[in-house]
Amino acid sequence: MAAEESVNDVNRRFYEAFESLDFKRMEGIWLREDYIKCVHPGWALLTGWDAVMESWKRIFENTQEMRFALTDVRVRVQGGLGWVTLYENLNSTLEGQSNAAVVLTTNLYEERPEGWFMIHHHGSPVMMRQPEPHPTVQ
Amino acid sequence: MAAEESVNDVNRRFYEAFESLDFKRMEGIWLREDYIKCVHPGWALLTGWDAVMESWKRIFENTQEMRFALTDVRVRVQGGLGWVTLYENLNSTLEGQSNAAVVLTTNLYEERPEGWFMIHHHGSPVMMRQPEPHPTVQ
Repeated sequence: MAAEESVNDVNRRFYEAFESLDFKRMEGIWLREDYIKCVHPGWALLTGWDAVMESWKRIFENTQEMRFALTDVRVRVQGGLGWVTLYENLNSTLEGQSNAAVVLTTNLYEERPEGWFMIHHHGSPVMMRQPEPHPTVQ
Repeated sequence: MAAEESVNDVNRRFYEAFESLDFKRMEGIWLREDYIKCVHPGWALLTGWDAVMESWKRIFENTQEMRFALTDVRVRVQGGLGWVTLYENLNSTLEGQSNAAVVLTTNLYEERPEGWFMIHHHGSPVMMRQPEPHPTVQ
């Protein structure tokens, strides 16, 4: 399997783990290192295995359902790192309330002898799909 | 110079170019490739040299002043790629109006024989600095 396909595969498994709300599956996606990082939309940066795993535990505890449709998935691989960008078009049920949202995401994966593992997830809310004529940095 | 220092250096030069509002300086930071990507806070994903450069041109045209204080800068280098996360604590003047904001950013740089060049910038608004007791994905 070409490296791009392997990264695409682990990226797909990341979203399947997210949809499953199964913490053990999510644990298996990530590299167990102190330099892994995770940014949930609007949250502060989380660094290291413990902080990142704690965040998934809490999200899974508070989510009844999560469904993703991924669009514009772009994968590049270089020197043992996989770099993925995509849109998460998600429908979730949180504490009984349904939500639809679009999240723009950068994911990074690192290659190890056992396969590819996530080392970085940065999701951010999309406020507009098209740039304004006179955009401003917020 | 160790690779981490080189990446730290180009990352610093990226923010100096941003503060200078000098489009040519910003052009010199980026790799001239069709796979470069840029996410300004709240914007859609921009891909490729033309789209990314056009966005900087528009931002610079509409910004009178931009000042960054960078915090929590973390740099990792692996296989010719540099991965940086940080907080941009920024003060800007846009169309005569002053703004203060915190942006959480992932930057990627690629090594070439001529040096390190930016290939990805993903900035997103921070809505809270500390995770909530019961955080939700938006």
